[in-house]
Amino acid sequence: MTDAKGSPDLVRGDELYEGKAKKVFSTNDNDLVIIHYKDDATAFNGEKKGAIEDKGILNNKIAAEIFKLLEENGVPTHFISRISDRDMVCRKVRIIPLEVIVRNVAAGSMAKRLGLAEGSELKTTVFELSYKDDSLGDPLINTHHAVAIGASTFEEVDQIFGYAAKVNEVLSAFFLKRGIRLIDFKLEFGRTGAGELVLADEISPDTCRFWDAETNEKLDKDRFRRDLGNVREAYVEILNRIDS
Amino acid sequence: MTDAKGSPDLVRGDELYEGKAKKVFSTNDNDLVIIHYKDDATAFNGEKKGAIEDKGILNNKIAAEIFKLLEENGVPTHFISRISDRDMVCRKVRIIPLEVIVRNVAAGSMAKRLGLAEGSELKTTVFELSYKDDSLGDPLINTHHAVAIGASTFEEVDQIFGYAAKVNEVLSAFFLKRGIRLIDFKLEFGRTGAGELVLADEISPDTCRFWDAETNEKLDKDRFRRDLGNVREAYVEILNRIDS
Repeated sequence: MTDAKGSPDLVRGDELYEGKAKKVFSTNDNDLVIIHYKDDATAFNGEKKGAIEDKGILNNKIAAEIFKLLEENGVPTHFISRISDRDMVCRKVRIIPLEVIVRNVAAGSMAKRLGLAEGSELKTTVFELSYKDDSLGDPLINTHHAVAIGASTFEEVDQIFGYAAKVNEVLSAFFLKRGIRLIDFKLEFGRTGAGELVLADEISPDTCRFWDAETNEKLDKDRFRRDLGNVREAYVEILNRIDS
Repeated sequence: MTDAKGSPDLVRGDELYEGKAKKVFSTNDNDLVIIHYKDDATAFNGEKKGAIEDKGILNNKIAAEIFKLLEENGVPTHFISRISDRDMVCRKVRIIPLEVIVRNVAAGSMAKRLGLAEGSELKTTVFELSYKDDSLGDPLINTHHAVAIGASTFEEVDQIFGYAAKVNEVLSAFFLKRGIRLIDFKLEFGRTGAGELVLADEISPDTCRFWDAETNEKLDKDRFRRDLGNVREAYVEILNRIDS
C-alpha cells in the first residue's frame, strides 16, 4: 500500500489486472483505479515480446496529454490525473470487449487483408471493430456480430463510433500541426459504475500509427514490430512534438 | 450457337465467364445472358474440388423457383426464365464485388471466428460482407472497407442490406412452412445496363445452409464440404420440399 502522489487521500490497493503494457490497481475509492504503465512491448497477438526502455514513462505522459486534450474537446475519458512517472489515476470502468480501430490511410492488418499498398489513400475513413478475445486472436467483426454475441448494442456502437470520429477529428488536426500524420489508431471504451460511456485504455505510440508528415518516417510501435531500430527515440519524438 | 429453348428469338453466343459452379454466355440480346449450371462443386476457396451428380439440374430448378418467389415479393432479381435443364436466361449485370451473408444461427466461418458452437442462437440477425477476391480469400470486411476501396457506396450497401433482409424474411418463412430452417445464406448483387440494382448469382443448397426443422439434418453443401454423404439426396430433398 503506497500513497498515491498528488492525491493525498488516495491509497493504492490490490492489483486487479495485468495487461501486456499496463497494470491496474484498486484504490480506497471504489470509483477510481491507478493504472501503471510498463515498459513491456508485445506484437502479433503476443507472439513477439520485448521491452522498450522508458516506454511506460513516455506513454504515461503522452496518454495524459491526449486524454486532457480530448476532455477539453468534449470526449469523456476515464482519465483523472497523472500522479507519478508511470502512474495515472483513472475512473474505474467495465471495459467493453471491443477494439475500435480508426483508419485514415491503409496500413497494417487492413492493408494486408485488402491487398492495398501501405500508405494508400482511402475513399472514406474506416471504422473497424475487433472482438477483444486473445484466444480467438482479436478477430475483426462488424456491428452485427458485436450485437449478436452480446458484446454491445446497436445504440452503444453508434455512440462509440461517434466518439471515435470526434477523437479522429481532434487528434488528426492536433498532430498535423506538429508535423505528424495520424495514420490509424485503436480505442477501447468502458462504462463507469454510474453507467457513463467513456474512452478508456491509452492513446500512445503503442496504439496509434504516427508518420512524420515530411518524411513518412514511422514514429510508433511499428518500429518495434518490424525491428526498424530507434524505437525509444520515436516515442521521445512524439512526446517532444506534443510538448512543442 | 444454339437456339435458347423457350425464347425462340434468343441465340446463345460466346462464353463470357466460367465460375466454380456456372458458366455465363452472351446472347444476341445485349441485355440478356444465359447462365449454365454445372455439377462442379468446390469448397474452402477452391481447395476442395469435386462434382455432385445432377447438381446443375437441381440448382437450376431450385434457383428459378426461389427467384420467382422473391420477384413476387418485391425483390428485383436478374432472373428471366429457365430455358432448359441446366440453363436460365437472366438480365446481364455488372456484379458488385461483394458477398452478402445473412446469418440467423451461428454456423460455418462465423461460428469458428467467434468461438461459438454451431447452432448457437444469435441476439440479432447478422449481415456480413466479404470482398469478392479469390487471391485474398474473399476476406470478411465491413461497410466502411467496401466504400474505402471503391467496391460500393454507403447508399448502395444500405440498399443491398435492405434487399437481403427482405430475402431473409421471405425465404425463412417459405422454408419453415416446408420443415426447413434457413440457417444462413450468401447473396450477390449486380447492376443492369440501365443501372438497376438486382439480386444476381444463384440461391440454392450451394449458397444456403438448410437444416431439417425436426432433426437438424444438413440439407446443403456442407454435406459435400464435410464429407457427410448423401449429397445429391440432400439437393433432391430441397427441390422436393420446394415443389410440395
